[in-house]
Amino acid sequence: MQSTMQDAPLQIAQILRHGSTVHGDAEVVTWTGDGARRRTYAEVGRRCAQLAHALRGLGVDGDQRVATFMWNNAEHLEAYLAVPAMGAVLHTLNIRLFPEQLIHVANHAEDQVIIVDPSLLPLLNPQLPQLTTVKHVIVTGESTDGVDAPDSVQVHAYEALIAEKSVDFDWPEVDERSAAAMCYTSGTTGDPKGVAYSHRSIYLHSMQVCMTDGPALKQGDRALAVVPQFHAMSWGLPYAAFMIGASLIMPDRFLQPEPLAALLAAEQPTFAAAVPTIWLGLHQYLEQHPQDISSMKDVLIGGSAVPPSLMHVFEKDHGITVLHAWGMTETSPLGSVARPPAGTEGDERWHYRYTQGRFPASVEARLIGDNGETLPHDGKTVGELEVRGPWITGAYYGVDAADKFDDGWLRTGDVGSITPDGYLTLTDRTKDIIKSGGEWISSVDLENAVMGHPDVLEAAVIGVPDPKWDERPLVAVVLRDGSDSTPETLREFLSDKVAKWQLPENWTIIPEVPKTSVGKFDKKRLRSTFHDGGLDVTRL
Amino acid sequence: MQSTMQDAPLQIAQILRHGSTVHGDAEVVTWTGDGARRRTYAEVGRRCAQLAHALRGLGVDGDQRVATFMWNNAEHLEAYLAVPAMGAVLHTLNIRLFPEQLIHVANHAEDQVIIVDPSLLPLLNPQLPQLTTVKHVIVTGESTDGVDAPDSVQVHAYEALIAEKSVDFDWPEVDERSAAAMCYTSGTTGDPKGVAYSHRSIYLHSMQVCMTDGPALKQGDRALAVVPQFHAMSWGLPYAAFMIGASLIMPDRFLQPEPLAALLAAEQPTFAAAVPTIWLGLHQYLEQHPQDISSMKDVLIGGSAVPPSLMHVFEKDHGITVLHAWGMTETSPLGSVARPPAGTEGDERWHYRYTQGRFPASVEARLIGDNGETLPHDGKTVGELEVRGPWITGAYYGVDAADKFDDGWLRTGDVGSITPDGYLTLTDRTKDIIKSGGEWISSVDLENAVMGHPDVLEAAVIGVPDPKWDERPLVAVVLRDGSDSTPETLREFLSDKVAKWQLPENWTIIPEVPKTSVGKFDKKRLRSTFHDGGLDVTRL
Repeated sequence: MQSTMQDAPLQIAQILRHGSTVHGDAEVVTWTGDGARRRTYAEVGRRCAQLAHALRGLGVDGDQRVATFMWNNAEHLEAYLAVPAMGAVLHTLNIRLFPEQLIHVANHAEDQVIIVDPSLLPLLNPQLPQLTTVKHVIVTGESTDGVDAPDSVQVHAYEALIAEKSVDFDWPEVDERSAAAMCYTSGTTGDPKGVAYSHRSIYLHSMQVCMTDGPALKQGDRALAVVPQFHAMSWGLPYAAFMIGASLIMPDRFLQPEPLAALLAAEQPTFAAAVPTIWLGLHQYLEQHPQDISSMKDVLIGGSAVPPSLMHVFEKDHGITVLHAWGMTETSPLGSVARPPAGTEGDERWHYRYTQGRFPASVEARLIGDNGETLPHDGKTVGELEVRGPWITGAYYGVDAADKFDDGWLRTGDVGSITPDGYLTLTDRTKDIIKSGGEWISSVDLENAVMGHPDVLEAAVIGVPDPKWDERPLVAVVLRDGSDSTPETLREFLSDKVAKWQLPENWTIIPEVPKTSVGKFDKKRLRSTFHDGGLDVTRL
Repeated sequence: MQSTMQDAPLQIAQILRHGSTVHGDAEVVTWTGDGARRRTYAEVGRRCAQLAHALRGLGVDGDQRVATFMWNNAEHLEAYLAVPAMGAVLHTLNIRLFPEQLIHVANHAEDQVIIVDPSLLPLLNPQLPQLTTVKHVIVTGESTDGVDAPDSVQVHAYEALIAEKSVDFDWPEVDERSAAAMCYTSGTTGDPKGVAYSHRSIYLHSMQVCMTDGPALKQGDRALAVVPQFHAMSWGLPYAAFMIGASLIMPDRFLQPEPLAALLAAEQPTFAAAVPTIWLGLHQYLEQHPQDISSMKDVLIGGSAVPPSLMHVFEKDHGITVLHAWGMTETSPLGSVARPPAGTEGDERWHYRYTQGRFPASVEARLIGDNGETLPHDGKTVGELEVRGPWITGAYYGVDAADKFDDGWLRTGDVGSITPDGYLTLTDRTKDIIKSGGEWISSVDLENAVMGHPDVLEAAVIGVPDPKWDERPLVAVVLRDGSDSTPETLREFLSDKVAKWQLPENWTIIPEVPKTSVGKFDKKRLRSTFHDGGLDVTRL
């Protein structure tokens, strides 16, 4: 029996229509280093229509890809809204990819147009000749100065291109399951792989961002989006803010602690989202340059685990609640959010807040063991996290990656446990976990223990082959200058911190841990250096 | 370009799975008059599985209809979840329908099974012989005493029927656009018409109930659902509560002020939803029997306009925020919610709170004029409200009602204005508005003005034919005993309260205003009495 409900698609055009009318007075603020550019959502709505007309004029039709190579700013917001609303597909290029990765993803997505910020031209220019499908480069602002493009590419200034276009556009009705936006993951194995979000998935995810068991973004909030728009859709903040009537505060390229502090003082955000590194840097700066940042009530932190000390200091010093969250590009990205259960207090409350959080109704989670068995959610049993839901990817764009999926569920590659009431605690990545004599050793736990030693700057732990135990941990340590710690003293330091059978016997002192393009430990490279005999290993 | 997102349907089975596991400790409390029955959501989940097995055992298959004739209680919640989750269709029968209406809707929906509360058997028994498709009656509780059914109907006791069934059920994956639940409107014209909600519409509506621009129901809330489960799905509270992990407090048949006050004292709800009449009655009772009800933070009121005085007294006396809302059976039912814009204070804030509220992104609204033209949202221009969205009905079940829809939009039959920032103010029903000389006179505004006179108990205003102005208002007044007011003195009383050209010249004193089955003024009957010459009209 069919329902009698209207067949109204969930689509970005509706977010655009709603935000630019009902919430037309909300604003997007773009930081300029010493001040701000301001634009109301009503203006954004009109400029989105102009941008859509301009792109149509350049021949963008059907589901062609329009890429951005941009910081977080008002024009990036316009591209977020206008490109999908007109039926085309937004591709947010990660400005931190290695050149060969950037070339790969732009060609793989067949980008027709790239919108770029002037300050990023030095990063884009060298690759332009190898971007085989790009026909147009649009530089934000008034000028095309600084573009170095091959003759086959037409170059436009954003403001001139949209000027005098109509401020009305007849946004088409789209199939809600069609692609709206693409983002490539910056994984450490192989080429980056693309995820294509649908109108439906973005719409539903935006609702979740405004739900009380999610970030609970609300009308009137001033949301500081530090997490880049080229990274997992800025965690969905731009769309959710437009949907609910929260203003957006965009830092553009000013992501260092000092300008961020100035932005906080000037624009008084009530909500913010960023990775832990940003908040650590800001906290250190504020210790030396005290400033009231108590306008911020909630700060969403994810991307990697948040040090509990950071959560405490933000609450104690600034009255800010840190919302720990988990997600990935493949999950839109939310994921779980660590709101403690109502009624919990004190240490119990903190215990919940340290976790990666609780899943909402739309994200089903399960744990899978070594032999494919489903494991209990008892808060103790550890397995690989798999997730399912309407905003979780079920494939990668144009790539066969069947091993990343399991009967319709996404294999996250994360390892952890889930409590009966749905709270996730991650302990490692599947590819980094060390399988020793049938037991699992968390490389992350070992790293954290080693990094607790005052002489240790960085520590990365990988599994190495062992004839008796299959695998045993190898600890690669970066020591502070002038330290006299040795593998022996470090192992001694660990002896009362980890279980005896986990105590690592393989150690190597290195000058630096190799990093990926987004600054994470590149254990793949470390493993390959080990296998090539490039590490000087002490065996205790 | 298709997205890479998973094709995970939005379905009630997922609300059931999530609520009964992640929020397994939440509870549904059913009032028994002098105490409460309690059941955790984990138990509800197990009993839903048992109920589904039991219904399968009775032959319920495919999209067959399972009706309920019940108060708000734990078993009604189980039917809400289990029936759609197993793929069947829930039909909530309105216990307040006239007998011929009840017979019509049960036969029209082809109900196979009716689940009924023992206390409602006296209302159901007389109609049972005429319910031609009903094969099974299930009486909640342990006993089938009191059922008077024809031989063709099998009678079961709920607890015996589900006992010893498996507490696991393999909930099927459904097409999210298939029907999940049906509700017939109790309109005053013609037979009640059925709306069939889909899994998708109920799921999306449940998210909205937990969004910050909606009722913002949250985990840990204790939600008192006074609005009947047979009336517009109890405004979506049961599903939303299960989705978010709010506990439900169900009054069963104890809806009078005194037992409601006892329930409030015992169960300390934090959130509640009901029509204005309930709150008026409760307020009057509490004036004479003072009691702390400040556990309630938010009270959602809709169904008819809320007197501003009631909103003020709840805030002042009890610290409760009244959320005025608009919706109808055809809109799932939310609708708009009157949360004032952030930053407003004092009178401005109250001004917004008096309105019918602001629409969320998923409910598009427009105003249509006499000639089908779209009217501006300027807060002044008045037209018929039309709405569109994924949880708005686009048809009635098995009935041709093309005149209720306009190019895919639902014609609400409500008349009002919308501000540029999306706030709705209703002034009348289209069928009740009086069209006098090309201008519209609101019957509701006139009624409120007349009812402001201390001698007036009730007043209903209808339009009557007028040779010069096409239509003019006729005021039907019910006077208090012993009053010496006359049409002349009442008209004089109005003279400084309404525009001169609106001053009614036609008056009639009546003993009582006719009411519909749900207690609203039945102006259709009043009009027909007028046309039959049954009113004694004074013309001034």
